[in-house]
Amino acid sequence: MSQKTQEPVVDKLTELATQDAKWITLKKIDYTDQTGKARTWEMATRKTRGKAGVDAVAMGNILLHPSRAPATLVWPAGLIDADETAEEAAVREFKEETGYDCKLVSMSPVQSADPGMSDANMKMAIVEVQLGEDDALPEQRLEDGEHIQRVIIPLAEFYDRLVEYSKKERFIVAAKLFHFAHGMHFAQTQKYM
Amino acid sequence: MSQKTQEPVVDKLTELATQDAKWITLKKIDYTDQTGKARTWEMATRKTRGKAGVDAVAMGNILLHPSRAPATLVWPAGLIDADETAEEAAVREFKEETGYDCKLVSMSPVQSADPGMSDANMKMAIVEVQLGEDDALPEQRLEDGEHIQRVIIPLAEFYDRLVEYSKKERFIVAAKLFHFAHGMHFAQTQKYM
Repeated sequence: MSQKTQEPVVDKLTELATQDAKWITLKKIDYTDQTGKARTWEMATRKTRGKAGVDAVAMGNILLHPSRAPATLVWPAGLIDADETAEEAAVREFKEETGYDCKLVSMSPVQSADPGMSDANMKMAIVEVQLGEDDALPEQRLEDGEHIQRVIIPLAEFYDRLVEYSKKERFIVAAKLFHFAHGMHFAQTQKYM
Repeated sequence: MSQKTQEPVVDKLTELATQDAKWITLKKIDYTDQTGKARTWEMATRKTRGKAGVDAVAMGNILLHPSRAPATLVWPAGLIDADETAEEAAVREFKEETGYDCKLVSMSPVQSADPGMSDANMKMAIVEVQLGEDDALPEQRLEDGEHIQRVIIPLAEFYDRLVEYSKKERFIVAAKLFHFAHGMHFAQTQKYM
């Protein structure tokens, strides 16, 4: 990536007071459980959810090339803007983060991003990108402060390559991405069905 | 589920001050980005991580029965105790939440549970349960306050049934579970490879 000149460094990690947080906050839930008993639960929550009622969208994607094996560009994701749909956000964010125009193939139901910890939710799109024979990687249109390294993996090597990335220092693979690839691998190698 | 007598109800949702939270908190990260510029990021974090260095484990599982189709018990998950390994937690939590003894088949690398929102991390186990021909569902050993309804889905219907659950009122499917099933479905139905 052309802008990259050094590894990012964490300079300081401090406790953040709820009233000073702009993007996320903490909530206490008082609830009555299945047996009628009063209980409490703590959760983190995003402050940015808009009219879609969904915080974020992730874009599973297939890059189709006339003469190369189908590949996936390790998955862009982003928050849905206040006034857009998940579908609009998927196409917009995909263009911004990868530079590619894409065709929306499917959109998942709403999913709970990390239940037990937060009420953040998301949908997963699947999109296709049709490349020409000689297409170069197009320019990204990143927002200020975004440093996203594009990693392209042949679809057939998706799981194995994520396992490899997990072994590298300073790398941790996102769980939803890993679970999708793991599910593919499981379906292709399992002996149960 | 025998203990279930009513739907749980949220009575009150209030802002929770960072200093009053017991399980989770908010952090501000001051960091220097790839171009040398100072930036900040907000994240939620768990306060319970122990010696394993991993917050939680989820148990993908296969129930093997002599004469029925292989099935999965919709995935238990839990926090890893301060002094146990992910492997120990997987077997313990599986027993507590399902009543079954299981055999650990595999353990994933560490994954980021919901990057962008938190530094929570997790591993995913795959476990097998060998049932006898006439085995009844064993007793769960739930902790006080846990109300977990066991849902058993034939492995071949995993994705379709999660899509159905997503359409029900008061239901939202956990994203990691959904992504694994979606990956299985994708591998079984895609025309790219």
